Amino acid sequence: MTAPLKSVDPATDIATLMQGIGRRARAAARVLALAPAEQKDRALHAMAAALRAQSSAILAANREDVAEARAGGQTAAYIDRLSLDEKRIGGMAEGLETVAGLLDPVGTVTERWTRPNGMTIERVRVPLGVIGIIYESRPNVTADAGALCLKSGNAAILRGGSDSLRSARAIHAALATGLRDANLPEDAIQLVPVRDRDAVGMMLAGLDGNIDVIVPRGGKSLVGRVQDEARVPVFAHLEGVCHVFIDKAASLEMARKIVFNAKMRRTGVCGAAESLLVDKAAAATELKPLIAMLIEAGCEVRGDKASQAADPRVKSASEDDWSTEYLDAIISCKVVDGIDAAIAHIDRYGSHHTDAIITDDDEAAEKFLREVDSAIVLHNASTQFADGGEFGFGAEIGIATGRLHARGPVGVEQLTTFKYRIRGTGQIRP
Amino acid sequence: MTAPLKSVDPATDIATLMQGIGRRARAAARVLALAPAEQKDRALHAMAAALRAQSSAILAANREDVAEARAGGQTAAYIDRLSLDEKRIGGMAEGLETVAGLLDPVGTVTERWTRPNGMTIERVRVPLGVIGIIYESRPNVTADAGALCLKSGNAAILRGGSDSLRSARAIHAALATGLRDANLPEDAIQLVPVRDRDAVGMMLAGLDGNIDVIVPRGGKSLVGRVQDEARVPVFAHLEGVCHVFIDKAASLEMARKIVFNAKMRRTGVCGAAESLLVDKAAAATELKPLIAMLIEAGCEVRGDKASQAADPRVKSASEDDWSTEYLDAIISCKVVDGIDAAIAHIDRYGSHHTDAIITDDDEAAEKFLREVDSAIVLHNASTQFADGGEFGFGAEIGIATGRLHARGPVGVEQLTTFKYRIRGTGQIRP
Repeated sequence: MTAPLKSVDPATDIATLMQGIGRRARAAARVLALAPAEQKDRALHAMAAALRAQSSAILAANREDVAEARAGGQTAAYIDRLSLDEKRIGGMAEGLETVAGLLDPVGTVTERWTRPNGMTIERVRVPLGVIGIIYESRPNVTADAGALCLKSGNAAILRGGSDSLRSARAIHAALATGLRDANLPEDAIQLVPVRDRDAVGMMLAGLDGNIDVIVPRGGKSLVGRVQDEARVPVFAHLEGVCHVFIDKAASLEMARKIVFNAKMRRTGVCGAAESLLVDKAAAATELKPLIAMLIEAGCEVRGDKASQAADPRVKSASEDDWSTEYLDAIISCKVVDGIDAAIAHIDRYGSHHTDAIITDDDEAAEKFLREVDSAIVLHNASTQFADGGEFGFGAEIGIATGRLHARGPVGVEQLTTFKYRIRGTGQIRP
Repeated sequence: MTAPLKSVDPATDIATLMQGIGRRARAAARVLALAPAEQKDRALHAMAAALRAQSSAILAANREDVAEARAGGQTAAYIDRLSLDEKRIGGMAEGLETVAGLLDPVGTVTERWTRPNGMTIERVRVPLGVIGIIYESRPNVTADAGALCLKSGNAAILRGGSDSLRSARAIHAALATGLRDANLPEDAIQLVPVRDRDAVGMMLAGLDGNIDVIVPRGGKSLVGRVQDEARVPVFAHLEGVCHVFIDKAASLEMARKIVFNAKMRRTGVCGAAESLLVDKAAAATELKPLIAMLIEAGCEVRGDKASQAADPRVKSASEDDWSTEYLDAIISCKVVDGIDAAIAHIDRYGSHHTDAIITDDDEAAEKFLREVDSAIVLHNASTQFADGGEFGFGAEIGIATGRLHARGPVGVEQLTTFKYRIRGTGQIRP
């Protein structure tokens, strides 16, 4: 039996608890901002070692969470997301080691110039400060998010799902071991130790100015609540209504390969294609085989009249289908009149997340890459590359669908801001 | 007599008016995002020419605004900010030409890398979209903000102060002439044509998703309202509690020159020094002459006991003085025990805007530049360089005191975001 969950009854206690967490996070952030890369990496390696060394305690805690979730009648998919085993703990530990191996973004000079009066100005990356992460029941987020915040010199306040609190606490204990081993403040990564939902509201209010940005990780209802209530900036992921456009100059072989991967590799990820657009000029040769391929792979196709005419198994698409993120083996399919119509459709119905063109015509490709206003635009590659790991970021804290500061996969670099350093020799302003 | 101010009576009319402005801005933003630099620059030059050609209409409109403000009993300083003359119109026109001469940030590739699977990934600057600017009675903001938004490929919705509406409309008419001359949509720069304050609330709510960021330009009460109510991101300037720290290795000559400029060049700007910190080890030689210099220049000095002991004319500083932005010929003055105490004081009482160290010791300078967490940190240069023009940005839409996306002077580059362009040859995700 692991330690009992803390219970904090009066509302004032929660407020006091959360204020203390905020203050300690701010103090830790000051230390982290100046910590050398070597020390942060040492902590990450020690955290990985502690995860492995403490795996039986983590698994014991997780078994209690899983038993409670099962008793509560959660779905098999939910239980799977919640469950840990030795392999998953090993994966978390390797994730920490991957983050340790990334370049430290803090202190990087991104621009440097000299003014006519002789002053030099440098723009240098610095941490954001304190990052609040509000997530659901995947216990691994505790380690992943904590590691990314640490690497980028930020303090983290983690608020995991109630159902995974025992697991998160056991994982957090391993992270604390690593921080201690590297002589970094344990408050660098704090876990909200109670299930009380008021804690979330307090984080969204910013804990007296002690949270600089909130990252919600979870389904649309969580993200929606965070966006509605947050009084601090949010790096949010809303939805990925991603398109694959088959240009008139697409090869059928390339189109088959990419459409299949973009839709069917994993249907539940945000970069999964949800809509297939086919140029009218390519429809005669490409539409029918692509639809057949999808249907035969078990994908439901909801199409316009032209798609239905191409294959009687295609269901009729409603207006809503064009902007629906299915996250399932379903795709909408439409024949469009040329690349301009495709771009206009994506602008109107898409979510500006990730969109791809398949074509052998470089001019069409460049037009698409230039004119489609999405975080990620691809030519002859699968939309499922929308992922920080696939970008080479090593890991990501999430994918941002907003336009400001962070857009697309959010790796350590986007967990920093910058300041200007000016070196003079007595310059005064005239 | 210029055209009468429009009156829109029923609340529904304002809502309809503002929704239309939002929709038209979004449509214009799509055009602007793809407009070549040459076309935008042509518009900026045409706008400058139109400002000069239409100066008598602008001055006539301004005279009516000024007469009304005088009749309303506004202060002389207020009237001065509101008033235009040929010279100020010429200055606005030159400002537009300066912006035309800046590099176009849109389309700049800031990073490019190749993945092991052969895909190339580029990070490229793109416009933010639609920028709402809410300002007070400086009519020149109409031209300055409109030009910066245009250059960076963004549509602008301008909501100026009620007292300057006639002037703003006349200036806006010149901008519209320039846009027409360059064959760009007039909706690229829209001015809210009514005085109704509900228009501001609607902008802060985001006009149905048609505003991407709000930039308030004005005093603390305006900025505070915008920050409290905005449901879209804000680039806000709160306050500049800026410090000059005289290190023990500072030369008195350098200290005199910079302290005088930092405090007294203009006392009303955000980069003006509000607090002087002197290392205990330098106090014997530097404190008395610096205080005397300031007092003899007409500056009130509010100090701690050591400062009062150095000069009997120093008034006693209260705890509040350490965090007060005077924007006036007043400075707080404190003797601190070394550079660490100075950095701790700045962290506790400052506003993380702009802070300077005066020293001949490079090691102390580097420590200060690294450890002080402010948007701008300077060594041996005046805090009054906190300005986009002085940074070489050509112009600024304001200075941001937040940490996300924009920090410090906000020039055209920070009015952009980015997207990722990926070029493949059929890559699919394993």
